[in-house]
Amino acid sequence: MHISDILLRDLDGDGVLRLTLNDPSRRNALSEAMLTTLSTAFVEAGADPEVRVIILAANGPAFCAGHDLKEMTAGRANPDRGRAYFTKVMTMCSGVMQGIVNCRKPVIAEVTGVATAAGCQLVASCDLAIAADTAQFSTPGVHIGLFCSTPMVALSRNVADKHAMEMLLTGDMTPAARAAEIGLVNRVVAPEELRQVTMGMARKIASKSSMTLATGKRAYYVQREMGLSDAYDYASDVMVENMLARDAEEGIGAFIQKRAPQWQDV
Amino acid sequence: MHISDILLRDLDGDGVLRLTLNDPSRRNALSEAMLTTLSTAFVEAGADPEVRVIILAANGPAFCAGHDLKEMTAGRANPDRGRAYFTKVMTMCSGVMQGIVNCRKPVIAEVTGVATAAGCQLVASCDLAIAADTAQFSTPGVHIGLFCSTPMVALSRNVADKHAMEMLLTGDMTPAARAAEIGLVNRVVAPEELRQVTMGMARKIASKSSMTLATGKRAYYVQREMGLSDAYDYASDVMVENMLARDAEEGIGAFIQKRAPQWQDV
Amino acid sequence: MHISDILLRDLDGDGVLRLTLNDPSRRNALSEAMLTTLSTAFVEAGADPEVRVIILAANGPAFCAGHDLKEMTAGRANPDRGRAYFTKVMTMCSGVMQGIVNCRKPVIAEVTGVATAAGCQLVASCDLAIAADTAQFSTPGVHIGLFCSTPMVALSRNVADKHAMEMLLTGDMTPAARAAEIGLVNRVVAPEELRQVTMGMARKIASKSSMTLATGKRAYYVQREMGLSDAYDYASDVMVENMLARDAEEGIGAFIQKRAPQWQDV
Repeated sequence: MHISDILLRDLDGDGVLRLTLNDPSRRNALSEAMLTTLSTAFVEAGADPEVRVIILAANGPAFCAGHDLKEMTAGRANPDRGRAYFTKVMTMCSGVMQGIVNCRKPVIAEVTGVATAAGCQLVASCDLAIAADTAQFSTPGVHIGLFCSTPMVALSRNVADKHAMEMLLTGDMTPAARAAEIGLVNRVVAPEELRQVTMGMARKIASKSSMTLATGKRAYYVQREMGLSDAYDYASDVMVENMLARDAEEGIGAFIQKRAPQWQDV
Repeated sequence: MHISDILLRDLDGDGVLRLTLNDPSRRNALSEAMLTTLSTAFVEAGADPEVRVIILAANGPAFCAGHDLKEMTAGRANPDRGRAYFTKVMTMCSGVMQGIVNCRKPVIAEVTGVATAAGCQLVASCDLAIAADTAQFSTPGVHIGLFCSTPMVALSRNVADKHAMEMLLTGDMTPAARAAEIGLVNRVVAPEELRQVTMGMARKIASKSSMTLATGKRAYYVQREMGLSDAYDYASDVMVENMLARDAEEGIGAFIQKRAPQWQDV
Repeated sequence: MHISDILLRDLDGDGVLRLTLNDPSRRNALSEAMLTTLSTAFVEAGADPEVRVIILAANGPAFCAGHDLKEMTAGRANPDRGRAYFTKVMTMCSGVMQGIVNCRKPVIAEVTGVATAAGCQLVASCDLAIAADTAQFSTPGVHIGLFCSTPMVALSRNVADKHAMEMLLTGDMTPAARAAEIGLVNRVVAPEELRQVTMGMARKIASKSSMTLATGKRAYYVQREMGLSDAYDYASDVMVENMLARDAEEGIGAFIQKRAPQWQDV
């Protein structure tokens, strides 16, 4: 399979880029090829001025099944029993997840099927997530002797400790409705409405100034790791720079004049 | 308008101080005058031994609409395009928010109307919040090119990341019932019951030892920023000092003797 | 009472150890004797290869009423008014709580009755918690002039700030259903089903590789205190080591071969 076939790209006229995991026969596993493709896709989308918002969707019954266990197992044949290979794959995978967080553009997960292990981590790493009521989530590594230790980095930053621990220690599936209750996804809709709801949210966000979105998304994750006082010092500086930017002057002026703003995205 | 008119003070016999934002024609915006008045009010209330608990309420349909955009825009006429002025206002505003967190007295937000941007931040900064079912919350800066970067400091310390991001990236209104689900407010009541419920909670807290409340509130926010081991070392020290205080001796003695304690607030 | 009588131990054939607080006449208070016994029990259970999962349950209407106030009060008769004694007890208590977090084995709280103050902290410190609908939770120290400052370390790492503050500032009881909503317990069941549900969850977890559980539990709490980038670096290293462990090779092999894994717990 040609690499570009496993991740479909579709950019619409509103600046909404749909990235669709398209390796259903492998349950959209995060193979080396998929990780490389995803990494490139987020870097390119972040740099492309035509892209305003990114949706991460998937073809097939599985959203993403996590790592490709056959590839991983093949790595055991190496003289070092796979240590170097596993390290490489984990570094790539953590890079993709942090690439979503660090991407200048908001990323929305659109989940119809089963998101497991690093697939669940993908959803947790997105800024927003909308799920069909058919979606399910799990961190089932405990079933195979391999605790979902990297998925839990993202999971534990989305849901409360006891909920994260229940998923991690039992490996049980969490239905979409429960995932919404605990904060792993924003909301749950009927499968036939999913795409429309996600596109509606994406278009709404795409109508905002890209400069403003990039400023705010970055600041969100930076301040999140600070103590309160440092976070306020930092965020106040961000606000001042944002006020001085062209799109804030335009946006505030338009608001006061009761007209629609014209973004220049700077 | 005379400054003291935009923030009403009402201290009852139980030590409950109601601070009421009273600039409804400006939707209780955080003008320079309002920020200065609020800052002083919390400093004074913190130091006043008659004040045991503070309620922050508002007159008019808006709880608080955030910064005063006309004042901010006027600042652009300065030779530095407003940089110094924006910095000053952001510093004042972050000071008010942290003044609530650092105030020795518990602060309860009582929200009937719309709390937006820094107004939403005010609610998030209070220790507790009760909302009428008519209340709504949003961080709509994204609509005007100015991401709600300082409001998100408080918001992201109240609600899960995906919920915070949805409010910040879409700018959509969050109804009171949803605000309760995601943890932004403690509970939602009918508008005609709001004041009674808030006052009931305030009087219950006001009946406790002020020393104990001040000790605990301070310790809460200090330990919250520590790792688990440091937090336990710190909180254990706080407990020992608290045990040695007069009101703990009185309170524990009264409990064992099955009588009502007589606080001296020391 | 002989020390060993206040904490019952029952290890079943599946590796599920039930530790039952058994001092109902003192509402299972965390007396010096109870703290010493609990501390030893968790150290021993952590080291015992027969123990795979721990349930912490209680006999009597109270799960645990927190510190033994009569013991504490007796300490006031010392020349230092109790400072050294209070310090000792707080250190012991914080040690027990962190002993649960640091224990290699997953710990599930099974709560039928009232869990107050350090008793509520015990529940919050466990990895998982299942409550009967008769259970209640509170941090009532504020009633007796002694803020629940050490309980709040655990509580504030389980529930959102406004929910924690409401419990701490009011001292009110939180019913089991509300405790589930705010994340203090995983789920609520009928009293007559509680033991069966807890045992079912415990046996499910006990069927996993002990090595994997210990690796994951430790990594969870370590990464939880790190920034995102450090957490990913750390968790990636943990994953690589876990991949190289015998039980991961066995588990992944069994999964690929569609057979049941045979753990060696290494």
